[in-house]
Amino acid sequence: MEKLEMIYEGKAKQIYRTDDENLVIIHYKDDATAGNGEKRGTIENKGVLNNKISNMIYRYLMKHGIQTHLVEELNDRDSLCTKVDIVPLEVIVRNLVAGSAAARYKMEEGTKVLTPIMEICWKDDNLGDPLINDYHAIAFGLATREELDEIYAQTLKINDLMLKMWDEMGIQLVDFKIEFGRTKEGQILLADEISPDTCRLWDKHTGEKLDKDRFRRDMGNVEEAYKEIFSRLEKKED
Amino acid sequence: MEKLEMIYEGKAKQIYRTDDENLVIIHYKDDATAGNGEKRGTIENKGVLNNKISNMIYRYLMKHGIQTHLVEELNDRDSLCTKVDIVPLEVIVRNLVAGSAAARYKMEEGTKVLTPIMEICWKDDNLGDPLINDYHAIAFGLATREELDEIYAQTLKINDLMLKMWDEMGIQLVDFKIEFGRTKEGQILLADEISPDTCRLWDKHTGEKLDKDRFRRDMGNVEEAYKEIFSRLEKKED
Ligand SMILES: Nc1ncnc2c1ncn2[C@@H]1O[C@H](COP(=O)(O)OP(=O)(O)O)[C@@H](O)[C@H]1O
Ligand SMILES: Nc1ncnc2c1ncn2[C@@H]1O[C@H](COP(=O)(O)OP(=O)(O)O)[C@@H](O)[C@H]1O
Ligand SMILES: [Mg+2]
Ligand SMILES: [Mg+2]
Repeated sequence: MEKLEMIYEGKAKQIYRTDDENLVIIHYKDDATAGNGEKRGTIENKGVLNNKISNMIYRYLMKHGIQTHLVEELNDRDSLCTKVDIVPLEVIVRNLVAGSAAARYKMEEGTKVLTPIMEICWKDDNLGDPLINDYHAIAFGLATREELDEIYAQTLKINDLMLKMWDEMGIQLVDFKIEFGRTKEGQILLADEISPDTCRLWDKHTGEKLDKDRFRRDMGNVEEAYKEIFSRLEKKED
Repeated sequence: MEKLEMIYEGKAKQIYRTDDENLVIIHYKDDATAGNGEKRGTIENKGVLNNKISNMIYRYLMKHGIQTHLVEELNDRDSLCTKVDIVPLEVIVRNLVAGSAAARYKMEEGTKVLTPIMEICWKDDNLGDPLINDYHAIAFGLATREELDEIYAQTLKINDLMLKMWDEMGIQLVDFKIEFGRTKEGQILLADEISPDTCRLWDKHTGEKLDKDRFRRDMGNVEEAYKEIFSRLEKKED
């Protein structure tokens, strides 16, 4: 399958049309941004690592009954995926309070809570991806009640599966962000990526951060952290 | 019933203990604040007007099946109420987008939406009453699932009743904030006040604002607006 013209360039990836109108090629770049584009940089080999990391995670989820957009890894930086109409929501799961939620609610990073928290944010760079609730999503026409129900049900399953998967690799899954899309047939499908760009991953024993917070907070060893995640996933896949 | 010592002083009201441990006296002040206390001032006679306005609205709601904390208006500024343990949520209904929501979502004041929006904010001055969702409320221990269900059900009923009531007075109910409490028996009860301090009320024909936005935005004729609301409610009660 060949790349035709680019139809979207985002902060971390490019999307290409293919000769099949139901498929796109996603190309992973090394570009990294933080704070809604305020901080910009590159993380060496991030594109290669995230392409492979995301695909390994998606294969694990698919093996356990989650339907995703992934069709086939084409090469180091490109994957063939089902083309979807992205639901303009960032769906976040927080097993511990960290990042923006820790700031918003003045809680310490890593605060335990009574139950996992699911959040939806309106995926809109102009608004800064603000937190919304189901009423906003429905009232603003971003998703229907039925779509939200399906999204929450899938997200809960994905969290359960990922908690177990990362735990087996010695990693605590603190939080993550996912996106869903609608297929031509109206089916809700897990799309976009799952990677150290989109998760908070803490080493279970040392507490070391193995995710994009190393870039956001200028902690150094960013590429090394992504590589560590990649190699733990590789070992698991064998 | 007599006021004993003051047990809480808020931005707009004082709460007094009485010789019945299940009852409090709420005293309405003329103090007005906006922007989480950043702007401070007084609105002449606001205490008297809001005490009477809130009680007129509560009597209407009670006549239509809503249970509230109101027991008896004692005098111009004091009302006897069932003492509750306030659920630390500000429950907001938006029939049109205005105020902080218009800013947050970059929408024009008065934008129509597909369905009314209910929001819950964590009532915490130190955090600036941030928007949260049901997962936060439960995970942070602010309310249980059952309490939230009861709160949303009552809030929807209150919105339906108030839309009709205000409409009959020539007023468009744009949005409002309410609070609920738990009685000793664990029942969820509408508490606090409903007044031009806590609602956006626009004249149906002229669009004129008849609420606290006149104070927030230095529009003048603040007391007159509250008086206008009072006199329309008085006419309705006759
Ligand atoms: N299967 C898919 N079909 C169509 N669009 C997708 C698919 N998967 C992800 N996308 C979208 O493509 C873009 C990926 O590029 P990215 O750099 O992450 O963009 P952004 O800066 O918008 O987050 C995102 O906007 C994402 O929503
Ligand atoms: N029936 C009640 N029993 C106990 N507390 C109440 C009752 N009704 C309202 N309250 C609380 O009393 C306070 C009223 O004062 P107010 O000036 O509105 O305070 P605030 O600045 O906290 O909003 C509020 O904190 C409100 O939650
Ligand atoms: Mg993205
Ligand atoms: Mg108050």
